[in-house]
Parts: sequence; structure tokens; C-alpha cells
Amino acid sequence: MPSVLWVLFDGGGDRPKNGVTPFFAALKPVIDKLTSLGSCGIMDPISPGVRPGSDTSHLALFGYDPYKYYTGRGAFEALGAGLELRPGDVAFRTNLATVDARGIVVDRRAGRYVALEEAREVESLMADIGEEVERKFGVSVVYKSTVEHRGVLVLRGAVSHKVSDTDPHATGEAVRRAQPLDASSEAKLTADVVNYITEAFAERSKGLEANKRRASRGEPLINAVLLRGAGYMPEIEPLRKRYNVRGAAIAGVALIRGVAKAVGMDLYSAEGLGGTKFDKFEEAAKLAVELLKRYDLVFLHVKGTDSASHDGDFRGKVDVIERLDAALRPYEAILEENYVVVTSDHATPILVREHTGEPVPIMLYGPDVVRDDVGKFSELTCWRGALGRIRGLDVMPTIASYLGLSEKFGE
Amino acid sequence: MPSVLWVLFDGGGDRPKNGVTPFFAALKPVIDKLTSLGSCGIMDPISPGVRPGSDTSHLALFGYDPYKYYTGRGAFEALGAGLELRPGDVAFRTNLATVDARGIVVDRRAGRYVALEEAREVESLMADIGEEVERKFGVSVVYKSTVEHRGVLVLRGAVSHKVSDTDPHATGEAVRRAQPLDASSEAKLTADVVNYITEAFAERSKGLEANKRRASRGEPLINAVLLRGAGYMPEIEPLRKRYNVRGAAIAGVALIRGVAKAVGMDLYSAEGLGGTKFDKFEEAAKLAVELLKRYDLVFLHVKGTDSASHDGDFRGKVDVIERLDAALRPYEAILEENYVVVTSDHATPILVREHTGEPVPIMLYGPDVVRDDVGKFSELTCWRGALGRIRGLDVMPTIASYLGLSEKFGE
Repeated sequence: MPSVLWVLFDGGGDRPKNGVTPFFAALKPVIDKLTSLGSCGIMDPISPGVRPGSDTSHLALFGYDPYKYYTGRGAFEALGAGLELRPGDVAFRTNLATVDARGIVVDRRAGRYVALEEAREVESLMADIGEEVERKFGVSVVYKSTVEHRGVLVLRGAVSHKVSDTDPHATGEAVRRAQPLDASSEAKLTADVVNYITEAFAERSKGLEANKRRASRGEPLINAVLLRGAGYMPEIEPLRKRYNVRGAAIAGVALIRGVAKAVGMDLYSAEGLGGTKFDKFEEAAKLAVELLKRYDLVFLHVKGTDSASHDGDFRGKVDVIERLDAALRPYEAILEENYVVVTSDHATPILVREHTGEPVPIMLYGPDVVRDDVGKFSELTCWRGALGRIRGLDVMPTIASYLGLSEKFGE
Repeated sequence: MPSVLWVLFDGGGDRPKNGVTPFFAALKPVIDKLTSLGSCGIMDPISPGVRPGSDTSHLALFGYDPYKYYTGRGAFEALGAGLELRPGDVAFRTNLATVDARGIVVDRRAGRYVALEEAREVESLMADIGEEVERKFGVSVVYKSTVEHRGVLVLRGAVSHKVSDTDPHATGEAVRRAQPLDASSEAKLTADVVNYITEAFAERSKGLEANKRRASRGEPLINAVLLRGAGYMPEIEPLRKRYNVRGAAIAGVALIRGVAKAVGMDLYSAEGLGGTKFDKFEEAAKLAVELLKRYDLVFLHVKGTDSASHDGDFRGKVDVIERLDAALRPYEAILEENYVVVTSDHATPILVREHTGEPVPIMLYGPDVVRDDVGKFSELTCWRGALGRIRGLDVMPTIASYLGLSEKFGE
């Protein structure tokens, strides 16, 4: 039975610059041969013009409407930080901040630069506070620093996302008390827990080594934690159940691993596959081909195209595409016996350096797929193809149908 | 920063006649050059096969789902008559009619022909009745004649659209009493107001000069006003807020001006731009190009194509397109530095003389837009283009994304 290898170039889509795009410029004989044998089209990851994040886009591509399943940034930020979330868990985005003696926020970012050892010390303090919360409220707490002053806080227990922010979102204002936003006992408990954590942190952060050092240098203290954007982990019916597809994801980026895990894919890592434009793909390609034997769908996530785009690095983006293609070369014959999907989760044009809302090219190869006359995978060519213009949500049902795995709707 | 000029040919879409359409036949070097440099496609203003009105279509094109925002004809008819409507205002379509001594409708159109001075006299009577209503019920009333026996009536205050028609929709039946259609005090008040107006009009129309004249000639009297189609003005989040786009509309037609105003665009007029197939576009084009400096989006509405279509005038339709193109010619270089969208709000085929439901051609030009191989803007060519087949609701998000103004959905 054939399986599907799905290669996703994160932020791979682009706009023409001097008449070409990185996909068009890249020398990628394997992908282009499969393209010449398969069907092409363009895809709106969410819907035409909508600028997707990588989280909302991957949800859509895996077959889950992000307008239904994207339940607040907190949860997906926590997934992105590599935390495991279960349905019902409530997650917040957090800032380490500086307040004055009266509790007024003077710096929402505690000077912005937070060193790794400072972040570790804060995590350790939060772990202590979390143990108290567990004993006192029966709610478990996980806090993780992400970048600089930012982090995520996850609550698990009889909690609710219906609580207000403690972050005043402006300096010169006091840290707010969290308020329940509905009448449920869960919202009340969550507000109590949040306020307990906020107060405990305010009190006990005084003893942080980081603050002794910061005080001696006249730097902003880390003496408050601000919470915002409460979100909850939605109940997601796994891919296996929803599409009858056993999926594996090979990815180096925590957010993508988080989303893939949330939809029930098994996670794999490969040497060389991190999240930069310097990634190497030999091990990832080898692993992907091996996994084709055991899974219906193998999703290979390539972050480097997005990283190069945010840097405005055209040549770097081309190189990522060419390196991935070269890594697939030894397996060309095997790929031709299976299905292959190549696409992107959104455009990140080199000249814009941010996600944009135009459609991205998509290619579907398979032994029994209609062959159109597109011979090159790119924004400049795929629109002529046999797939027409589809949406991210259309991909998984299409894959499941070609694999012969999906249920018939009706008789 | 580039802006967008959006040229909309009302009813511009057509069906092939002897193998050509007006867009195909028209000599329009500016539009066709931009077409050759940009992306083309076809667009269903609402959805495939749906025959749009100009109001519902413009709502969709401005990014507002007409199934959600088109709240009864009354409101949009009143907008079309150039009345200013606020959210919550309730509007009715009205007929001036003739009833016999027992109040039975004998002519729903009072002979159909209503002279301008008769209409003005009726407006004046309605203004008097409106003053009484304001004093008595605290509801303000605006009545405006539109065409022949038709008009619109707008109520502002603690009113509701949940009231039944007074129009029996047939001759030989009595004028109906308006009934509240729910238990709200607003519906009750509205029914009371409507019945008061109906009765006051029946009584006081006896004194109209128009009726003295009509009686002397044996013509049907204007002695009843029939209300139908209560609609309310929806709460519409302005374009500026919804898409972060500052929009200006140049239009001569009241209905289009009304819809543009309802979505928060600034309105402009240009000499020569009325609503006929004889309109001249030099001033409109000049103004549009000036406004590009101050607005993100400049919408230029060309009614003449629709007017010619309703007349079945192929050559007249071609002429409108050619005159518009010629008016753009001095600004070709400026346009090439901005984005340009050319499309239509619906087809009005010359051979049908009515709005029809097939898709219309659309063209998007921009310095960083994918160039496809369509070199001519028309129904016969744009379907091959890189935009594929989109919907009216897709246009605004696409524009906002290219302008770099839209919010990202997710991280």
C-alpha cells in the first residue's frame, strides 16, 4: 500500500522579485520531476487573503478548522514551547516585568534581556510556587521561559480560561487582579490560583539571585509576572480517528511539534533538522522514507525557508529548497511508488519578511493522480495546474481519499 | 507605500454574443497592459450562480457577508435613495396607492405615474405627519419619494423591524393594520407609529392639491401609503477597523454611495460621473489618482456599463469601458507604482438585460503580484489566470494583505 510523504516548506511561498521566486529559482530535480508527473494548484492555507500564523495554518493543513480549534494564543504558545497540553488545560502567555514599590508596572519586560540562567532561576521559583498551588488548590502548574522576558504558564485541574488578564498592557498602571469572567466555580478557582501565583511571585522574587545582581547594577528587577491571553487546549479528535490516517511528523520546531502532537501524530526528530536555514536534511529524508513503511502519512517540516525569509535572504531560501531536494534524491524510486505532497504553510516573501495572505503552490504526485502540464514547482507555474485553487482544509481529505482510508459520506 | 485603485464596472460582466463580450471587444490599452503584468481570475460576487443585486454584491465586495449584513430591502433601498441610516434605524419600502371609500385597495400604484411636484407635495405632507409622530411617540420619521409611486420611510428611535406589512400585496383587499411580530415594546411602538402614519395619511391626503387635480381628471387618487419589507440598518464594523484599510469611494449612484458609506468609506463625487452610459470619466480619474496619496483604497464606481446593459446596448457598453480606460491613460505610470483591481459586481448580459449569476472577470495588478499569461481583461480570457476562481468576499482580505495592513491570525 502506498503512503504519503508530505514535504512542507514553512514560509516557502514568495512573491516575484526580478521576475522569480525562490521556488522558481531553486534547482530541485526530484520535486520538479514529481511535479511534472503530478497535479499542481494553488492553496489558500486558511482562506484567500488571510495572513496565517504557522499554528493556525498547520491546524488547517492537518484538517482542523482554526476558527474552531484555535482557542486562544496561550494554548498554542505553550505547545510551541514544547509543553504537553491536554484537553481542558488552560495556558497563559506571560511576561516577566518590573514594578515599583507601590506595585505599579514600570517596565513590562524587565529590561527585555533576560539571561538564560535568570530564566532557569525563575522557572525554579515557579516550580516551588507551583507545588504550593497543587497542595493548596489541587491545580498543577507548569511555567516555562521561552524567549527573553516571555514565557508560558499552564494550569491543569478544574480550571477555566474565563479569567481576565493580570497584565495591564501598559506601564504606569498596577498589576491587575485576575477576575473570573463567568459564574463557574472553575473560573473562580482559576482567578484565585492566578492571584496566588502573582502575589507569591511578587513576594518571593525578592530573593532571586538575578535580582541581587540586577540591583547591584541598577538594572530593572524581575519582580512581577504578568499573565495574558488565557486559552484552553481544545478537544481535538485525533487524525487517526477523524481521517483514519496514521501520521508521523518529523520536525525540529517546537510549535509545529506541538500542533502535530495535538492532532495525534507521532513525533520524530532527525539529526540536522533544527529550525534554521542551515539545517541539513540527509537524516530527515532517510527517516521519512523509512517511516513510509509504517505510517500512512509522513509529514516533514522544513523551517529553514521561513527563517531565511525573515532574514530577507533569497539565496539562503533557495539553498534550503535545494538541500532538501538533494536529500530526497537517493529515494526517488521509492517516492514514485508512493504519494508525495509538496507545499507551504504560508508565504513569507523575502521583500516583506513577514507572513502574507496570498496562496502558496501545492503539488500532489501519485501513481494514479491526473498529470497536468506543470513541470516546475513554483508560484509562477502551479496556478495552471489540475488542482485549481484549494484551501488548507482540503488537503487531508484529499490525502485520505487517495489512500483509500476515508469513510464514504452517504451511500 | 502603494495604495489600491479599484475600478468597478457595474454590470460589466457579460456573455459572449457572436463570440465576443463588451470587455473583450473594448479597446482598453491601459487596463489590458496592467492585465498583462498582473494576475487574473474569475469571481463569483456572492457564490456560483447566485444573481446579486448591486447592494448585496457591493456588501460582499467590501468584505461583508450579505447573508449576514443584508437585513431587509427597506434599509438598503433607503440607502439607495440617499438617506442617511444609522444602526438600528428601521426602513420600509413604500407605495403610494389608491383606496376606495371602504379602504379597499383599488390601485397599488396610484396610477403608477406620479409627477415630481406630486411627490414633493407628498413628502411635505409626510414631514408634517412626521413632526406629530415625533412629538407623540418620540420616533423621528423621514419619508422620501424615489421613482414614480415608490418611496422609502425611515423610523429612528426605540423601534423594531419586527412588524408586519400594511401593504396587502393585492388589489381588492383592505389596507392592513401593522402588527408587532414579537413581544418587545419596540415592535409594539413601531406598529403604533406605522398605523398612526397610515391613518393620518389616509385622512390628510384628501387635502393634497395633487388629488384635487387628479379628481378633476378622473385619475386614481393618492389616498393611501402602503408599507412593506421592514428592514433595519445593521451594525457594520467599519472597513477601517475590520480590515485596517482607509477607503474612499467615488460614485454617482445613490445606492452605491449608501453601501460605501455604510461600511465607513469617505464619499467623493466627480463632475461627469452620474449613473448613465453617457458619463465622462476625466474628472473621476483625476480625483481617484489624487486620492491614492491619502487613502489605502480608492474605489471608483462606473455605472454606465450596467445602464447600457439594461438598454441592450452592446456598443454603448463598449464605449463606457473605452472612455474609462482613456481617462486613466495620463496616469499609467502612477498606476504601475500602486495596486490596481478591475472587476465587476455582477454580469448584466446585453441579451438578458438583467443581472445574472455567472462569475465576472477580475484582475489584480501590483509590483509584486504573480504575472500570468493573460493579456486581455475579459470573460473569455481571465479564467486562465493565476487567481483561479474566487469570491467577492475574498477581495478585501487580499487587498489588505498586499497592502501589509491586515492582522495575522495566529502566531
